[in-house]
Amino acid sequence: MIKTYDVKSAQETILKRNYNHLLEYPENLIKSTEKLFGIGVSPDKAVDIILRSVRENGDRAIAEWTKLLDGINITDIRISAELIENAYRSLSPSLLDVFKLSASRIKLFHEQQPLPNWETTTLGGILGQRTTPIERVGVYVPGGTAPLPSSLLMSVIPAQVAGVNQIIICTPPNPDKSILAAAAICNIKDVFLAGGAQAVAAMAYGTKTIPKVDKIVGAGNLYVTLAKQKVYGTVGIEGLAGPTETMVIADKTANPAWVASDLLAQAEHDYLASAILLTPDADIARTVAAEIDNQLAKLSRSEMIETSLQNRGGIVLTPDLRSAAMLADDYGPEHLCLSVEKPEEVAGWINNAGGIFFGENSYEVLGDYMAGPSHIMPTGGTARFSSPLNVLDFVKISSVISLDPETSLELSPPAAKFAQTESLTGHAAAANYRIKQ
Amino acid sequence: MIKTYDVKSAQETILKRNYNHLLEYPENLIKSTEKLFGIGVSPDKAVDIILRSVRENGDRAIAEWTKLLDGINITDIRISAELIENAYRSLSPSLLDVFKLSASRIKLFHEQQPLPNWETTTLGGILGQRTTPIERVGVYVPGGTAPLPSSLLMSVIPAQVAGVNQIIICTPPNPDKSILAAAAICNIKDVFLAGGAQAVAAMAYGTKTIPKVDKIVGAGNLYVTLAKQKVYGTVGIEGLAGPTETMVIADKTANPAWVASDLLAQAEHDYLASAILLTPDADIARTVAAEIDNQLAKLSRSEMIETSLQNRGGIVLTPDLRSAAMLADDYGPEHLCLSVEKPEEVAGWINNAGGIFFGENSYEVLGDYMAGPSHIMPTGGTARFSSPLNVLDFVKISSVISLDPETSLELSPPAAKFAQTESLTGHAAAANYRIKQ
Repeated sequence: MIKTYDVKSAQETILKRNYNHLLEYPENLIKSTEKLFGIGVSPDKAVDIILRSVRENGDRAIAEWTKLLDGINITDIRISAELIENAYRSLSPSLLDVFKLSASRIKLFHEQQPLPNWETTTLGGILGQRTTPIERVGVYVPGGTAPLPSSLLMSVIPAQVAGVNQIIICTPPNPDKSILAAAAICNIKDVFLAGGAQAVAAMAYGTKTIPKVDKIVGAGNLYVTLAKQKVYGTVGIEGLAGPTETMVIADKTANPAWVASDLLAQAEHDYLASAILLTPDADIARTVAAEIDNQLAKLSRSEMIETSLQNRGGIVLTPDLRSAAMLADDYGPEHLCLSVEKPEEVAGWINNAGGIFFGENSYEVLGDYMAGPSHIMPTGGTARFSSPLNVLDFVKISSVISLDPETSLELSPPAAKFAQTESLTGHAAAANYRIKQ
Repeated sequence: MIKTYDVKSAQETILKRNYNHLLEYPENLIKSTEKLFGIGVSPDKAVDIILRSVRENGDRAIAEWTKLLDGINITDIRISAELIENAYRSLSPSLLDVFKLSASRIKLFHEQQPLPNWETTTLGGILGQRTTPIERVGVYVPGGTAPLPSSLLMSVIPAQVAGVNQIIICTPPNPDKSILAAAAICNIKDVFLAGGAQAVAAMAYGTKTIPKVDKIVGAGNLYVTLAKQKVYGTVGIEGLAGPTETMVIADKTANPAWVASDLLAQAEHDYLASAILLTPDADIARTVAAEIDNQLAKLSRSEMIETSLQNRGGIVLTPDLRSAAMLADDYGPEHLCLSVEKPEEVAGWINNAGGIFFGENSYEVLGDYMAGPSHIMPTGGTARFSSPLNVLDFVKISSVISLDPETSLELSPPAAKFAQTESLTGHAAAANYRIKQ
């Protein structure tokens, strides 16, 4: 059922980036927004309304939006310690071991990341950069059909490694026990029942119950994404997540059953997920397509998979491996899986990709749960300018300027002259006061 | 004329952060927007209109907005090589030397910044992070009353050190020669005549003349800031700049004339600039206030300075140095100048500041032009979560996942179990295919 494309037709369809996703909303979202907010109210405007009401009315607004949008009456916005503890206890020991193994590998990986603390004395005195943790971080954990405790681990642990002092979590009402258990494993006490744009607003502005944070991370639906974009500047954000995407480059050495299973795994995320195979090998293209048909029938989320594979997935036949790599690099996928004989060679041609998976031992599902690097990676081509979530997202730099007296005196006349050129005479005067001394 | 505050009254006025600056527009901006776009059109909506028209009509829209908003007919959007060359030649040799000294120190400073390239073999196989430069960067250089060639150097050079392949500049029509000369010093060939939101739109979406970039950096007016926020996601941005701010902490060892000159230099930037002195020493407070009155009369931008000092500046008397540091840390100033006997001690109490200037030899004007670190620093309290412009702004990370076969096999059963918990049966199947092998 998966379609096969030549390069040109792929570039006009599945490989075409829509960089304006926030300007054009899906029809069903426009309709559901108008149903709730009135005819003519765009999702953009609806999010403005939610942000403003939470800023002005705090917890009361959270409760009202939760009732209107989620259809749930919440009495306590904060989840009690007992509920978190009970969720933790309810997990089977074997599942708990899996969560803990995942958590420990995420921790070990991020602990090795170097921080940009440095000083130089080569420019006269001491110049450099000092890195400090962000004080308060809010993590958004979506609810929905498939609860993702893994996303909680993948965002909270890098923040903890960075040394963030206070980490809070917002998640829609009635969270799955696995999410609360993951919070318990990370020793997070502050979990709040708020979803959507109202959760983002609460973390950006603060309410009586939900503290204002300095940075918000985590993906959600389009309301969450729009809200994050709008509060950016008031708080930091790690990025604006779009639908998830995987690109596999395979040569004749690839195992077609494995490649097919990796594409199917990607396609099951949601209706907009994208799973694309690039290969110069027509045999691989054929056998992977056949394997997809074989395996699909056995999967529980087959309807979702069929839709996303048909609309956003495909197999692209490329002239050679090098041109497959060039297409991938231009696309800038969230995940790039190199099911090829020499993954190092192909990786050498790639600049733009969130995560690069070398060879079939490093299949993407291991990256989703167990490998160690955060699975929160840049989507929608944003790998051209942004990075997977990592320790650097939870620190900031202060420039350190500590010049010695000789260098200061030496640089003062040119500083005065530069300031004059910019008509900033007060700047020039400040420099001249030092020269006169 | 500068006012003196106690801590409490300062916290209610000049030290109070308005984190919602993008939701509330100044009255004069609302009026000028309505005059151009029609009654009821907010700056936010006006920027939407500009973005959409440039996205749809490219160069033609640039020319039309430039005519409407800047009142200028442009024939060529691209500045010719001759014009850049002539601007460079028109500079005096001594000013050229100043520009080149500044450029060389910016380059030397940023060349020493370590990049987060690393690998570990402790987690089974090879895991790590690979850093690559962003391919195309657009730098916005504002026009206006005081041309800032220094800002061009401070943004272009870190990008060049990072290895960015293509750097373009957009600046409003009739740029000062000093800006074009600075472009020539950086060997930038692509300078385009476009200002405001239309320039941001052109760099985000691309036009026939102006190439689409991957990231836009540089400050501008509120239209520019709003446009950057809206195109974020389509391209990267380095932050949303607000008015510039300096905080000075002084003890009894400070030179009152120097402190006064530093505050005056800061206040001359624009009507919204903020210059605040924190000191536990009443004598210093008095003498600095007197020095400000003395020095102000001699300065050409005295009207601007008086307005900004009165509205957004002041002297705050604190119980001791430590509490001055705590106030500064909570405020998170763009620039923090430590005119104290032991700057290292005070700096140890600070987590949130864009640039920390140690002692009176490292006065802020040197940081503006000559010291080396980029003078583009986080404003409006965003130092709580963001950093001065630096080499990291022009690179991105790819996570590298190259597990060995044994580790891959070992991690597959827990990955399958984790996936089952998340109801992602396709993920579990992909893991199980590896286990069966």
